[in-house]
Formats: sequence, C-alpha cells, structure tokens
Amino acid sequence: MTASFKKILVPIDGSIYSEKSLERACDFADAFGSSLILIYVVEKSIPINLLDRKEYLEILRKFGTNVLEKANKKLSKKGITVKVLLKEGNIVNEIEKIAKKEKCDLILVGSKGLGAVTRLLLGSVSNKISQTSPCSVLIVK
Amino acid sequence: MTASFKKILVPIDGSIYSEKSLERACDFADAFGSSLILIYVVEKSIPINLLDRKEYLEILRKFGTNVLEKANKKLSKKGITVKVLLKEGNIVNEIEKIAKKEKCDLILVGSKGLGAVTRLLLGSVSNKISQTSPCSVLIVK
Repeated sequence: MTASFKKILVPIDGSIYSEKSLERACDFADAFGSSLILIYVVEKSIPINLLDRKEYLEILRKFGTNVLEKANKKLSKKGITVKVLLKEGNIVNEIEKIAKKEKCDLILVGSKGLGAVTRLLLGSVSNKISQTSPCSVLIVK
Repeated sequence: MTASFKKILVPIDGSIYSEKSLERACDFADAFGSSLILIYVVEKSIPINLLDRKEYLEILRKFGTNVLEKANKKLSKKGITVKVLLKEGNIVNEIEKIAKKEKCDLILVGSKGLGAVTRLLLGSVSNKISQTSPCSVLIVK
C-alpha cells in the first residue's frame, strides 16, 4: 500500500462544514491508515473592538475545547489515532505552523466554516491555506 | 468500505506538477477503487495575438492528445479504470462542466502547472477551481 496521507491535519470549528471534513478524514483513516491531528484555533488577529475581549476569548477557548473533545471521542471509538490541539493566533498561520512542525501530508479543510467573521475579514481560510500550505490540501464541499 | 471518491477528475497538462497529481490519483484508485477521468483542456480564452492562432491551437491539440494517451496507458496498465477527455475553451469552465456532467466526487489538481501563461493571465487555476467547484478539490503539492 501507498505511503501517502499518513498524517492528516483537520482544522475544525464546530460547524456543519467541519463535521463533513471529519467524515472525509475518517474515510482517509480507513483507506490509508492515516493518523489525524484535529486543531481548533482561537482567532486572535481580528481587530474587533469588544467590550470584554478577555471574556470573548475565554468563551472561544471553552468552545474549542469542547469541539475537540467531542470529535476526539467520536473518532477514537472508530479506532482512529487522533491528536487534538487548541491553538491561539491567526488561524491560517497556526494551521500552517502545525502542518510544518508535525510534517503532515495533507490538510483537510471545509470550503466554508472556520469562522464566518474570520472569513468576512480575512477572506476564505481554505483558499489562503491552499495557496501557502507546505503540503497538499483537500477542500471538502 | 466508504462510497467517497468513486469518480475523480484529474486535469493534466504534461507538466511535472500533473505527474504528481497522477501519482496521487493512483493512490486514490488503489485505496477507494476510484475510476479516473483525465482531462486536457486546450485553453482558448487567452487573448494572445498570435501570428497563426490556428497553428498554435493545432499544436496544443496534438500535445494534449499525446499527454492523455501516455497517461492512459500508464494507468490502465495498473488496472485502473480511466477515461480521457480533450476539451477546448476556458480551462476552469471546462473542468467544472465535466465535474458536473460526470458527477465527479473529487477534482484532483496540481497547485502549479495547467499552463504558465494561463496562470499569469487568469490567476491560479487550482484556486479558481476550489472556489467554484461543485465537488471537493484536492490541491496536490
């Protein structure tokens, strides 16, 4: 069997779009024996003036932790090797940093999702990633 | 086994980038039993003033036919179900038209290639496709 797609990075955000990415990631794990790294990024680079930025970020952290935990449980039950990461910063940068550091073969990302606000302000996350990523990118529709 | 990635569209252009796409496509065929559609598009929407446009297009047609034939032979030898298509027009439009018509599950495309001239004039083909494609898109690096 092939050695491709051994390690796959899956950015998730708790949206229906990242649910779909997770389903595809399972297909890859089944077919290629891939291990998965799930990442949730608390987006900090958006210049929004919030009344209480600290509280806002705290909510995102809790939400991200829950999203990761839920996904981890679901995939581990299927016998898939999963690692979860909660990061903070610019979503595209964080994803690429981890892809490099972990030597991922593939980033599997939804065509939408990863933050409606982020998308409005920064443009499509999936497009940005596919332009600058160190590895192949699968954009799931 | 999963029903994903049963039919994969692979645009090729004879470049080293599309060689890599073809390799990944083989991985998918092995893992998912996918059938492949290879497409070469003779780009006609570029507004270049050529001395002999007719001859230029004829050269592209011949080149495309050879590229498809060579790839077809290589993949068929491996027992993969392959269909080849030579189209003319705007490369992004043609790829999307076929993806829809053939109900493809995935477009597998190199991050570079598909015509240096095209890219300069029209921007990255892979990016355009991933924005508007009816199905998932894998951008191979």
